[in-house]
This record gives sequence, C-alpha cells and structure tokens, in this order.
Amino acid sequence: MKQYKIAVVGATGVVGQMMRKVLEEKRLPVSEYVFFASKKSAGKKIIFMNKEYEVRELKEDSFDEKFDFALFSAGGETSKKYSPIASKSGCIVIDNSSAFRMEKDVPLVVPEVNIEDAKNNNGIIANPNCSTIQAVVALKPLDDKYKIKRIVYSTYQAVSGAGKYGINDLQNGIKHFEKNDKYQLEKFKYEIFNNCLPQIDVFLDNGYTKEEEKMINETKKILHRPDLKITATAVRVPVMNSHSESINVEFEKSFEEKELIQTLKNSKGVIVQEDITHEIYPIATKATGTDEVYVGRIRRDYSLDNGLNMWVVADNLRKGAASNAIQIMEYLMEQ
Amino acid sequence: MKQYKIAVVGATGVVGQMMRKVLEEKRLPVSEYVFFASKKSAGKKIIFMNKEYEVRELKEDSFDEKFDFALFSAGGETSKKYSPIASKSGCIVIDNSSAFRMEKDVPLVVPEVNIEDAKNNNGIIANPNCSTIQAVVALKPLDDKYKIKRIVYSTYQAVSGAGKYGINDLQNGIKHFEKNDKYQLEKFKYEIFNNCLPQIDVFLDNGYTKEEEKMINETKKILHRPDLKITATAVRVPVMNSHSESINVEFEKSFEEKELIQTLKNSKGVIVQEDITHEIYPIATKATGTDEVYVGRIRRDYSLDNGLNMWVVADNLRKGAASNAIQIMEYLMEQ
Repeated sequence: MKQYKIAVVGATGVVGQMMRKVLEEKRLPVSEYVFFASKKSAGKKIIFMNKEYEVRELKEDSFDEKFDFALFSAGGETSKKYSPIASKSGCIVIDNSSAFRMEKDVPLVVPEVNIEDAKNNNGIIANPNCSTIQAVVALKPLDDKYKIKRIVYSTYQAVSGAGKYGINDLQNGIKHFEKNDKYQLEKFKYEIFNNCLPQIDVFLDNGYTKEEEKMINETKKILHRPDLKITATAVRVPVMNSHSESINVEFEKSFEEKELIQTLKNSKGVIVQEDITHEIYPIATKATGTDEVYVGRIRRDYSLDNGLNMWVVADNLRKGAASNAIQIMEYLMEQ
Repeated sequence: MKQYKIAVVGATGVVGQMMRKVLEEKRLPVSEYVFFASKKSAGKKIIFMNKEYEVRELKEDSFDEKFDFALFSAGGETSKKYSPIASKSGCIVIDNSSAFRMEKDVPLVVPEVNIEDAKNNNGIIANPNCSTIQAVVALKPLDDKYKIKRIVYSTYQAVSGAGKYGINDLQNGIKHFEKNDKYQLEKFKYEIFNNCLPQIDVFLDNGYTKEEEKMINETKKILHRPDLKITATAVRVPVMNSHSESINVEFEKSFEEKELIQTLKNSKGVIVQEDITHEIYPIATKATGTDEVYVGRIRRDYSLDNGLNMWVVADNLRKGAASNAIQIMEYLMEQ
C-alpha cells in the first residue's frame, strides 16, 4: 500500500489544530507529516501521534522536498502565494482559504455532494466556506429529488470560525460578566458576548458581507446550479463552536414531508434529528466533536406551494473545515 | 386634568418589573397605583416612585374598587380568568398574554402601526408577542408603500423573553463556564448557554412552535393583511435581553433602496442604523434600555424581483412588552 507524505500549512491555527486532531483519529497511510506555520510560530514544538514535531517556517523552497498532499489553512494571502508553488512541485493542495474557491479550474468540493469534481484538479482543490459545507450536505439530496428554486439562509455562526481571537473575545466576555468590568476586544468590532453580530467578514459595495456572498456563490458552484436563486444573512452568535442555520427552501417539484425526511435520512453524512414530541432537534453543543451534518425542524413552509424550513447544525471546525479537507484527501488517496 | 387609577397585574414578574420601571419614567396622570401578583408573591414590599407598596394577592373581588386601566402580564391562565372580571368592572385591560390576541373583538395593537384599532375595544386590548411587535414597526411603513407579498422570519431571541428562570439558565451557564461543572436547568430543555435553541414555546401538530405561529398570525392581524404569506423560525440565543430578527421580504411593487431607507428613517418608532463603511448596524446590547426599533443591514435581495433583507433589533421587555402596553394606555388616556 502506498504511503503518502503530507504537509500541513498553518498547523498552529484553530483549523490547523483541528487538522492535526482529525489526522490523529484517522490514521491514514502516511509515511511522513511536516507541519508548517508562519515565522512567528516556527520552532514551536507540537505532539502529534505521541511524537514531538517542530513546526517549520513556510518558505518558497518548502515544497522542494516532494509532498503528495498539502493541507492549507493559513489564510488567503498565504494560499495565494504558496499554493501555486506547492502544486507546481507536484503535490495536490487542498486549500481551506477562499483564495481559489471561485476560480473556474479549481474544484470546490464537499465529498457527500460533488466528490467527482475533485478528480478534475490542476493541483489545487478548494475546501468551501464552513457555513456553505453544512448547508449543501443537507440541500444536495433535496435538490436531486425536488429541484431547488430559491434558498433564504439565516445563519447562527460560532466564534471558533473567527479563529483564536474570536474565541478570546467570547471567553473574555464570559469571564468578565460577573465582575462587570471592561476588557479589550481582540477580534470583533462589538462585544460578541451577549450579542448577535450581523456581520461576518468585510462588507462589499452591494451591502452584503463577504461571508454572505461566499454562501451564495459557493452553493451554486458546489451544486452545479448557477441558475439558483439564493440570498443570505450571516450572523455571529455567542456560541463557542458549531454553526446553526435557518434554511428556507422553495422547490420546483411538490413533495410529501415524510418522503422528504426519509430522503434526508438516507443521505450520506446527514443525521436527521426531528422529533417534536420529545423536543429533539439539532443543537450546537451536541454537534461539536462530530463530522456529521444534523438536520431538524423539518416542516412545510405554508407561505409557498413547495416550501420547506429546516434547521441545520454542524461542527464548523470539523465538517466545516478540517474533516471536509481530509475527506477529500482520503478520496484522492483511494483513487 | 383627569387622574387615573391603575392596576398592574403580575407586578413581580420580569415584564411586571419593567412595567413599573417604564411607569416611573413616564410620570403619567395617575392618582393611584395598585400592584397585584399571585398568592406566592403577595405581601412582598416594593419601592415605586420612592414610595413603599405592598403587593396584593389577585382575587376575584380585586376589581370591585374601580380601576381605569389594568396592565396584565401574569400569563395566559390568569388573563383568561381575571381579564373578563376586570373589564366587566368597567376598567380597560391591556393584556400582555396570548390569551385574547387572536379573538375577533379584541384589538391587537402596536401604537406606531394600528393605534386606531385600540378604540374599538370591548374592555380588553391585547399587547402582541414581543418578536411580532418589533417586526411590524419596521414592516408597516414598507407595506404601506410597497405592499408586502411574503415574509420569511428567522429570529434571534433573548432569554429575558422566557422570564426569570430563562435568565437564570443563561446566568448559571456563564457562571459555571470556568469551573466546567454541572448545574440544574430551570427553564430550558437544553443548555441555552453556548447554544442556539430552535424552540420557543411548545410545538404544534404542524411542526411549528407556538411562537412561530404567533408571529405569523399576529403580523397578519396587526397589519390588516390576512392574505399575507408568512413563514417563521423562532430561535432562542444566549443573549440576556433584546431580540434580533433576520427578515426577508418580498414586495408587490418595485422599490429604490435609497427611498426605502428614507421611508424607514421617516417612520415613527424606527431608528435606522445602516452604515457599512463604519460597520454600524443594530445590536442587542445597544437596543437594551430603549423603546425604539432599530433597523439595519437593509439591502436588496437579488434572488427576487422586489426582495429585501433587513436586521431588526429591539428591547423585548420594553418595546416588546411593557412600553408597548403603556403606550396603548397613554393613547387611551389622551382620548
């Protein structure tokens, strides 16, 4: 069996840490792991699979020693600069940043939805935005069966998606609650503790945020439905981890609720949590630590002929980032 | 000038406390206040306008001494039993419970929207659901100008709307975060701390919660638009006070964004907070303590011909409950 050589770029960030955790769990056929980070984190010692590794500084010659795969999660600028170098060296880059996602020759892949797209890569495969990944895992089987016409997204996104400083802002808010004193915000413009902030990423000229635009454009690309009508409101909530989403869908075809729920139950990567008698539905704390997408509050939207509401929750660091990227790599290893 | 005699029923609850606070601020032409509560809270001493009052037990003969107005916020069962007794005694009841809201001969009133309806009362006027009040204040001027066709609500509702035990659950979650130990939930089925719970009030057979049904039905009644198409997802979030709402609207008529924003700016009770250059938009902590409805993130929904997204925030205990009820009473005093 072939053994692969893997580079993890951005190994010390919040997603990088989760990459290491998921890789430890998966025990893939890997002969060597090398962990890269920025100059600031280089030299740091990490324990991985009971072995000590020194984090190396990412440099232009880092890929001269041949890798099979490089998992990038070091931000858009780093990806833009180093992904082409890595792919030119013969390694396949799976990039968690938004740098290449909308480029025509870069597949944007969620394994449960469009894994076949991963084959047609020119050395770079993009991992989608966290809030898009969990949405399309739930939407794809429904699109196949009932053909989606329009989607209205409203998200409830955890601070872990904003990285270490986002997590710090919420933790500091919690710690200072009883003292009722001031603390310095590290990431957000306003307190995320005790607030819902209707801004994720920067604003675009059309009034949408970049996060909202990502959800709109990436959903179309992953589902191969450039004609889809989509709108989105992306909101940060005071939750540590796992994103929740209120998704309103209009289908072209009519549906029976029972059949639709059964379709979701039969879908790969989906766990249906729908039991109003026992007040069971997906929640963030229960999704955390898992790779599945949880779907509940599944009910007909009576304001439309073929309308549906549902509530979709997943671990944004795992399925929304690290696990999805590693699932893509696993697929390519098996090919 | 006429001086009125006022009963506050449910004076010790979370909304009752806010009623007292708003009444203290307003200094209305009132000769006497009497505070009622259940047997459990009766006898409790409260300070109101620098004077000590003893809370009285609500009984069937409580309204034998004639009141001009009774502000009820003691839950549906108490309202059902005592509101008819109070109104029969000649007093006008303004009821914060859901008991009478959808009854044909009971006006459901938001002063900025349909204050004229308050005149046609048979002794009981209903105060709408908190999440509906703030929505219709923002929607009414837009309905007048562009005629609403369909609304998709997704809410981000604070724990203060769930009363004292709801607040306790969040506070206990915060206090126990650092110790990472267990605590007893008093109100919610699951931890609200660190979670978004897609359930407010009980489930109905159709899969919707009662809160979602309230938003749908009450919006139609207040706007006098029984034909409106509406769907809703109501979610509790780990925020102490002030509800936020992601509202997606489809209009019959076309609109210009600038003119629409100007329409909202000119509307009574609305404050527009819309400045993406400076990252200004409504947030819960800034709405708390005020009676206005804050509207921002106002932008065209490109997935529809005449679509709009907006983000609406208000203090659910003030505008969503106490202040709205007292504004209705003020109007009737002026008549």
